[in-house]
Parts: sequence; C-alpha cells; structure tokens
Amino acid sequence: MADARRRGTVSIVGAGPGDPDLITRRGERCLAEADVVFYDALVHAGTVALATRARAVPVGRRMGAETMPQDRVNRLLVAASRRGLRVVRLKGGDPFVFGRGGEEVLALARAGVPFEVVPGVSSALAAPGLAGIPVTHRGVTDAVLIVSGHDPDRLEARLGATAPQAATLVVLMGISTRRALVACLLARGWDGDTPAAIAWDASRPAATTWTGPLRDLADAVPPPGQRPPGTIVVGEVVRVRALVETMTAHGAAEEADGTRG
Amino acid sequence: MADARRRGTVSIVGAGPGDPDLITRRGERCLAEADVVFYDALVHAGTVALATRARAVPVGRRMGAETMPQDRVNRLLVAASRRGLRVVRLKGGDPFVFGRGGEEVLALARAGVPFEVVPGVSSALAAPGLAGIPVTHRGVTDAVLIVSGHDPDRLEARLGATAPQAATLVVLMGISTRRALVACLLARGWDGDTPAAIAWDASRPAATTWTGPLRDLADAVPPPGQRPPGTIVVGEVVRVRALVETMTAHGAAEEADGTRG
Repeated sequence: MADARRRGTVSIVGAGPGDPDLITRRGERCLAEADVVFYDALVHAGTVALATRARAVPVGRRMGAETMPQDRVNRLLVAASRRGLRVVRLKGGDPFVFGRGGEEVLALARAGVPFEVVPGVSSALAAPGLAGIPVTHRGVTDAVLIVSGHDPDRLEARLGATAPQAATLVVLMGISTRRALVACLLARGWDGDTPAAIAWDASRPAATTWTGPLRDLADAVPPPGQRPPGTIVVGEVVRVRALVETMTAHGAAEEADGTRG
Repeated sequence: MADARRRGTVSIVGAGPGDPDLITRRGERCLAEADVVFYDALVHAGTVALATRARAVPVGRRMGAETMPQDRVNRLLVAASRRGLRVVRLKGGDPFVFGRGGEEVLALARAGVPFEVVPGVSSALAAPGLAGIPVTHRGVTDAVLIVSGHDPDRLEARLGATAPQAATLVVLMGISTRRALVACLLARGWDGDTPAAIAWDASRPAATTWTGPLRDLADAVPPPGQRPPGTIVVGEVVRVRALVETMTAHGAAEEADGTRG
C-alpha cells in the first residue's frame, strides 16, 4: 500500500471506538505520515496526537450538532490533496458504519483524487464486546442487526421490518431517542424482560455499563459528565456479561481457597 | 491495561480481516509480549509472526473443518495461563462476531483465569468496505443485518424474520450455502435484481470482488486458489462501488486532459 500514501492521497481512516490503542497499525502509520488531519469531534485526542507532524483540523459533528456541513468537509479534503499534501480523514469507529465515509469517497472519486479506506474497529460490535457482551453467542444468536437511532421515524421502519428477538439489536446514536426505541419495540411484540444494556464511553477510562430489562432502558441514567456516547444492545446475549461476572467472582473465590491445582 | 498483560493472563485478540496491518495497536503489543499464541487457521501468517518470542500453536478451524474441539482449546488456554505464561488467543476478525469468543471467556471466567478482550476489525463490516461498499450510506440505508450462513436452516429462520430490502445484508461463512441463501431470499420477496457482491479474500493481495444481481449470486465463480473466505453483501449499497469506479475513471480522464485546476 506504499503508493496509496503518496503525496496528494487521502486516507479515510477509522479511529476505532475511542482508546488510541484500538486504531489499526495501518491507521497509525497513515497518521504518522500525514501533513494534515481532518478529525471528528468524538475522536480521542490521543489518537489525533499520533499525527505528530500534521496540522490537525477538527471538522466533525458531536451528538448531532453539525459543526461543518458535509460538502465543506469534502471540499477541504479535495483542496488539501490538490496542494500535494498527505491527507488523513480521521473518523470515529469505522468510516463506513454511519460515518458518511461513502459520501466522502464519492466526492474524492468525482474529483479524481486518489484515496484509500482504512477500516476501523466499529463501536457497533466493540462497545458491547468491551462490556463483556458478545453480539453473537453459540446457542443464543447468530444474527446482529445494527441500526442508527438518530431518526426515530426511520428507526420505527427498520425495527418494524424485523421480528421480535430475531437478532441481537445494536443501536448507535440512539441515546437521546431511546424512549421511542423502547416504545417501538414493545409495541412490535418484543418482551419487556428482554435483557438490554448501554455501554457508555466504551474503551475509555470512564467506561461504564448499564444493564436491565428492555422496559427500563429509557430510564437508564447516564453517568455524570458531558453526555458521553453510548451504544445500546438488546438481546439475550446481554446475559453473558452477568454470567462472566458471576463466574469470575466464583473463580476468584476458588483461587483464594486454594482449591485448585 | 498494563496489568491486564501480566503473567498468567489470557488476551483474546481479534486479528482483523487478514492483512497484518489491520490488527489494532493493542493487539500488536499483546502479541509482542506473548509467551504462547493459540491461533486460528485463517489468521494471516504475518500476524502470527508479530509474536516474535512466542510459541505459536494452531488450533482453529478452517472452512468448517474443526481441527480441535472448542473445549480442548478452552483447556489449553486455562492450562497455559496456570503455568504463568502470557497467553494470546488470536482469532480472525473480532473475537465476538461468530468467533466463539464468548465461550472462551466463559471458560476462563469459570476457571478464575484473568483475561482481557481486544476487539478486532470484523470482516462483516471491513470486507465490504475494502471492496468499496459502505454497509450504510446516506439516503440508501442506515441498517445492517449480519448473519452466519453456516447452517442453511437457521439462516432461513433469520432471514424470514426480516422484511425484504430492510437492511444491508451481510453473510459470513455463507459461500458454500449461497444457493440456499438466494432461494430463501427470493422466496421471501427479495427482488432478484437487488445488487449483490462477494468480497473474496478481503484485505489480502489476492482480494477480488464479484458483483451482480442477487439471482446470479449462487453462480458467482470463486477465484482460482484454495477456496478463499468470502463475505456476501446484498443491498442497494453495493451500487456505491460501481459509482466510485465510474467516477474514478472519469476523474482520472479529467486529470489527463488537464481540465482541472
């Protein structure tokens, strides 16, 4: 991929869920070689700091508050590339999972700017995992539905098309609309006792997880702080987290008793 | 996380879709510090080689051929940990996406063995992305359903629970059962013209992509070679790939004409 990072190239890089250690090796290298980095507000400062010789320009949105229109971001990428700079567009999670990376790729292709896409660890799968919740689990489920909670009306259409409990449901950008999510799921026949979780601030030091029945999801209290991002999970797999915790406590007790060889 | 890699700890690490550059920085560090690595057959040799001082033990399955029963893998992890070794369990993609990572975590918890989970880039999202197919795209879809194609009967139950074209459909481990997939989707009202793709060998040098209408998916011919893994995508987002290719060709022509400033 050496030529893909030549001067004038744009690398659209997924930063992963938060922790700078969860960016890929290739993403790290792109940042180290960059002349300019356009980054989303939710990307960890420590990840941006991996671009040691670059100018770092914040362009992203945070919690739906658009700080820069998408077409302006597209124009900035094209312009920087035409100035011969090595450009990184650093996006939270994976660039193509609700990241509008597709629009940026199309804008670059239209302008004839060479680009590469460097996938990232998506919060949709990693935030549950880091909270001890495997999105698939043998004997429980082998299907995962990932949706955006950004627009409650569209959410309703998406969920209406899926039978209750047919898959682990992961909702990104759904914290502020979670009351509508619960109402919609219950109305469509999901059991109010279905285990649910919110992984707040996944992979960051302040990470916390709420778990409870689906019917209580809307009343889950966010941790103190500045409205951290949260990933919602609904499905039987949430129970694995409690199993792991119980077993860990049991295992630790066994260890203390010296009953194991 | 320094203490999470202390002696006797097991790190369950996602290797990503193939290319050793697509493992995370934390995964790379776990490998560098490991005494022993138990790795799946599909993990790239270059990724295993990042464990420079470790004994590398293949344990995984390839294409459904089980080389070692899961409970034996679990016992190996526990035993190595109890010998005080730094252990890495290296799995393709993300450990919790059809990776049976949940079972390994439960076995370790039951045994009182300290562990950490290091997420990886899942092929479910990255294989389409590397083929130029964003799994979500503004104005096209904001939902993704990921299913395993391993068991055609269960696949049928999963797909029956989802309305036609309601989400981008991604099928892992579905190459050998893709005829059943197509039959099931058509029977359930999916349009045979829905764009479909197979990303073969994503992120590896031999990567190739087949695209065509859903009805032709079963007849897609695998590239020559030893049955490479393939990720199936069905949905309108597949069209973005062609758009990018067309625009890139157009942009390149403009560039050659010198008609752009």
